[in-house]
Amino acid sequence: MKIPRKILTALRGGREFLIATHINPDGDALGSALALAEVLEAMGKTAVIYNRDRVPDNYRFLPGHEKISHDIEGIINSRQVLVLLDCNSPERAALEKYHFGRSVVIDHHQTESEFGDIRFINSEAAATGLLIFFIAKALQADITKEIATNLYASISVDTGTFRYSNTTAEVLRASAELIECGADPKMISEYLYEKWGRSRFDLLVSTLNTMEIKKGVAIVYITGEMFRQTGTGADETENFANFGRMINTVRVSAVFRQTGSGTWKASLRSKGDVNVARVAESFGGGGHMNAAGFRISGDLGSVKRKLMAAIRKYCPVSS
Amino acid sequence: MKIPRKILTALRGGREFLIATHINPDGDALGSALALAEVLEAMGKTAVIYNRDRVPDNYRFLPGHEKISHDIEGIINSRQVLVLLDCNSPERAALEKYHFGRSVVIDHHQTESEFGDIRFINSEAAATGLLIFFIAKALQADITKEIATNLYASISVDTGTFRYSNTTAEVLRASAELIECGADPKMISEYLYEKWGRSRFDLLVSTLNTMEIKKGVAIVYITGEMFRQTGTGADETENFANFGRMINTVRVSAVFRQTGSGTWKASLRSKGDVNVARVAESFGGGGHMNAAGFRISGDLGSVKRKLMAAIRKYCPVSS
Repeated sequence: MKIPRKILTALRGGREFLIATHINPDGDALGSALALAEVLEAMGKTAVIYNRDRVPDNYRFLPGHEKISHDIEGIINSRQVLVLLDCNSPERAALEKYHFGRSVVIDHHQTESEFGDIRFINSEAAATGLLIFFIAKALQADITKEIATNLYASISVDTGTFRYSNTTAEVLRASAELIECGADPKMISEYLYEKWGRSRFDLLVSTLNTMEIKKGVAIVYITGEMFRQTGTGADETENFANFGRMINTVRVSAVFRQTGSGTWKASLRSKGDVNVARVAESFGGGGHMNAAGFRISGDLGSVKRKLMAAIRKYCPVSS
Repeated sequence: MKIPRKILTALRGGREFLIATHINPDGDALGSALALAEVLEAMGKTAVIYNRDRVPDNYRFLPGHEKISHDIEGIINSRQVLVLLDCNSPERAALEKYHFGRSVVIDHHQTESEFGDIRFINSEAAATGLLIFFIAKALQADITKEIATNLYASISVDTGTFRYSNTTAEVLRASAELIECGADPKMISEYLYEKWGRSRFDLLVSTLNTMEIKKGVAIVYITGEMFRQTGTGADETENFANFGRMINTVRVSAVFRQTGSGTWKASLRSKGDVNVARVAESFGGGGHMNAAGFRISGDLGSVKRKLMAAIRKYCPVSS
């Protein structure tokens, strides 16, 4: 991958950096921010990292995560160059109220805004961590074990650990180099996939016991009672909707999570070109083609029927 | 990886080959057999593949799988060189009754036997498919899309698609090359992880409902009755033992699968440096450090207790 010279010039030229990533950060946002900060510090610069939200528990293995600040007022100053990572508008990073003398954007999402004095947006790249890897190499940085771990985790999260269609030969070769620099694939995968609490696992099994499949749609539900019985909360249901996708006949996998008496949050996942964002939008929700969500009221029978009708309407089975 | 010259000489020198792999074949056994057969055929040789058991449904995407024969009498002849893949004793391939003029063994399991005129056993290698990849390169074979798909699938299966500790830089570089030769990571992952039959998924959920966790050991079981109720078979339980590993406190995850009245096949998976091969060996079974198996007789209560005692003995909790 070729890195634009202007990016390298901007990073070499600055002395103080504020690195910011998107709210509700994922592993790619956190790993690439931590890696870039270490690269810049090794070049004798100062680099602080801001994220509005706390680091989720499952990412607390990323080296240096405790250095991420959630208090922008405490770290911002007028000399800093802003580096916006894994997003490309200040709003996504909760920075719309602040002003920066100079700003650099490094991202792999489709452009949402024109923000940034210097922009490097490569929507073909599997992960922002992959961009940082090639930037670090172009800067002739020493890829330490910590940098390698953060970047390998970044790439792992955004490729489903090499299972999504963005897994290219370049992704695997970069990851091979990161292993040689000290990243431990097994350790990273364990932190990403094998650190569930027993109660969360029990909730998953109870949830899967409720599965019904009709016309390629798998539906499960989680009642308030199931949360109480397992001692779990809503934030432990992330990715539950993915399990229905394991089944060959399933086109859409849905989870109804009870949020109150007769109120539900629905999460949808789909395969291939089945667009569940349109289904979610029809209920006032939103999302991406293969992952979307919405809120709905009613008894379980009626909300299931409404979902089935919307899928029939917006995601007809192609012949 | 260096391939011993004697292996290349044997493959170059033979004209007719019988490739055989272990009973209850997994993706590494099947993928490496199919890839090697294609390599040999491209060299102008004849190569037939034998496996006692049917190809599990989830591997029916492997190019050429329909050519695998399950009828040894129909394909064996006295001129053939036997190539035993992904196992190293004739018993593992249900070939103990037959005689071969010459035999080659290519495997990555710890040696169980002295069988084979020419042996290439590399227990450091992640997959037999990785050995076949380097053999194919050493033979200057054209890695077709079909060969690449079979080998990428082999490596994916035996590394948990790059999640286990056997995921090395060499594994990722070989896989990068296989992508360049036509392997499609997304398609292969979909077939491996998102093509479960409904009945297999139901069996999984029933199995997870039986989970007990004690002292870091998660145990589930599958009775003959559970197979009957879901209309499934033993070949659909592959990787069930991995699910227990999702839980943070679990060091060893075990599945007892009923094979007859009071007889069981146990599959073990472990995390980190917990060596379950030693546990399996103590019952006359075998395997790798993090994945092993054995057969045992007794009622469910007693086989569970025996397993717990063996884990206590061979995998003490390090202090």
